[in-house]
Amino acid sequence: MQALVYNGPGKKNLEDRPKPAVQEPTDAVIRITKTTICGTDLHILKGDVATCRPGTVLGHEGVGIVDAVGSGVATFKPGDRVLISCITACGRCDLCRKRMYSHCTTGGWILGNRIDGTQAEFVRIPYAETSLYPIPPGADEEALVMLSDILPTGFECGVLNGKIEPGSSVAIVGSGPIGLAALLTAQFYSPAEIIMIDLDDNRLAVGKRFGATATVNSANGNAAQQVMKLTDGRGVDTAIEAVGIPATFALCEAIVAPGGTIANVGVHGTKVDLHLERLWSHNVTIRTGLVDTFSIPMLLKTVRSQRIDAKQLITHHFKLGEILQAYDTFARAADTKALKVIIQA
Amino acid sequence: MQALVYNGPGKKNLEDRPKPAVQEPTDAVIRITKTTICGTDLHILKGDVATCRPGTVLGHEGVGIVDAVGSGVATFKPGDRVLISCITACGRCDLCRKRMYSHCTTGGWILGNRIDGTQAEFVRIPYAETSLYPIPPGADEEALVMLSDILPTGFECGVLNGKIEPGSSVAIVGSGPIGLAALLTAQFYSPAEIIMIDLDDNRLAVGKRFGATATVNSANGNAAQQVMKLTDGRGVDTAIEAVGIPATFALCEAIVAPGGTIANVGVHGTKVDLHLERLWSHNVTIRTGLVDTFSIPMLLKTVRSQRIDAKQLITHHFKLGEILQAYDTFARAADTKALKVIIQA
Repeated sequence: MQALVYNGPGKKNLEDRPKPAVQEPTDAVIRITKTTICGTDLHILKGDVATCRPGTVLGHEGVGIVDAVGSGVATFKPGDRVLISCITACGRCDLCRKRMYSHCTTGGWILGNRIDGTQAEFVRIPYAETSLYPIPPGADEEALVMLSDILPTGFECGVLNGKIEPGSSVAIVGSGPIGLAALLTAQFYSPAEIIMIDLDDNRLAVGKRFGATATVNSANGNAAQQVMKLTDGRGVDTAIEAVGIPATFALCEAIVAPGGTIANVGVHGTKVDLHLERLWSHNVTIRTGLVDTFSIPMLLKTVRSQRIDAKQLITHHFKLGEILQAYDTFARAADTKALKVIIQA
Repeated sequence: MQALVYNGPGKKNLEDRPKPAVQEPTDAVIRITKTTICGTDLHILKGDVATCRPGTVLGHEGVGIVDAVGSGVATFKPGDRVLISCITACGRCDLCRKRMYSHCTTGGWILGNRIDGTQAEFVRIPYAETSLYPIPPGADEEALVMLSDILPTGFECGVLNGKIEPGSSVAIVGSGPIGLAALLTAQFYSPAEIIMIDLDDNRLAVGKRFGATATVNSANGNAAQQVMKLTDGRGVDTAIEAVGIPATFALCEAIVAPGGTIANVGVHGTKVDLHLERLWSHNVTIRTGLVDTFSIPMLLKTVRSQRIDAKQLITHHFKLGEILQAYDTFARAADTKALKVIIQA
């Protein structure tokens, strides 16, 4: 089968690899119909993710059709259409039973990281019953690819951890796909203001179209002052960090109101400064977390009922044979205006 | 009247000052019967608190008897015995109505900071109806001095912000008066383990006597490893920072379990390193906050019902005329084994 393989920092190839087989009774093998590329795949390609060894098939998002199941899998059978969670969950360890699937002691984020992933014709999914979701008849598969990672991440790590409430004020720092996923799902809770912040005017315009009430271009260095002005000097109740660098976290610290929350969604490679000399008395909450994807069934209902239009996040389409071009388009987002790219296998 | 006056960094004197008078209809003047000294008073004396101008009477804790009230005060009358909250709350601004009394737009922590405080024979209390609490007949006044600041701070900023639950594991970094107040009130929620961490073996012994299940002396530099060993490698569900320096906050970051909470109680003078390169995916919550003292009425019931013995925190007694000696005893706690000192006015 064709598969996109990570071959060490800076190196990836579309290779011919053996089709995966069921290894454990709880496994399923899925024939991928649609997958996508995540910013995290670019992190791996930079060599930032030590757990991903050269030779691994990348990708942790996708939809497909069940090809084979192990003897212990009762809830799925060959031919079933399924949505793949980016988080693999055994469903029985202490942390899974606390709903912290991202910390599953034998799972978590392993797809396209510790084990072969979804940017291929087939993928083996461990713990199939607790790591796959059935696709309802008539659902739009392409929209559902957004439910493997990006929408649950924006929602769980940004919106829920950020405690967004009706009438509250929100700033989302970073108007990339994850920031936009937070923007779409933030509107479930009817905040009064959602301010999108980014360096890229195109992405800010997308944010405006997706429902932002205001936008701030942070290129000129006074983003904090602009946000304070937009909020009558109070700051925001929720600041969502959707970039993953010290400067954007610092901006969140500068704009969070007393009693507010900073929800970190960005993947950080270095430490940041926490200004406790000011924040110790500021009554703030800072939340971190990898997505658990417990919200996939709920998000599926909101997509099907057209409460949110997940397909808005998709800007480009490629075939699996064109995946190197798809990576190039995704990596040069500032030029190509790419958000999420769909790859048809 | 006699009053302990801050005269600039390193300088304090017991001086003769005019007795305060009612200035606003919502004021009360209280004759202090008992007050105490807080670590924050030592911070002021070091020059760390810019809002406190030379010439200010120090102190934000105490009990006393109402001497006079303004025309707008209906719930207190001269002769009433009252407990003074360290937080002055107007009760009517947006932040007070969100129960964030510490951020009251015209109050907050002003006593012994922006206005004259309680280390004197008399003190003026603004917003008397929402900043004083009646002392029930028969209650032990000395124990109640611990309710002005230290017990609500340990409870609200440590225990409640730390989300302590039955069966959970807790580490309290710093076994001084505030850490011990957190230790006493943590036991309301029946955690399975409470590990006290300090450099001072005497304070750890006090912690053990107050209910800690284990103690760790951090002097030898391997406190994090010791805590991990005590928790079977998992870390603690709640880490309470009750010191206020970068090293103790770093220790909390090192020992918090996935899904856990760091509750910051310490008053910090400098920024700290937040290790988001590790914590971004660790599912943690960090809470900061100045005490709001909303828990005073509840804590009063726990003291009266002997659910906690607040008097355990009191190690020394002085008269107001001996307050310079009281400061010396409190400041040299490592030698004098002082926790809280009571000053009788």
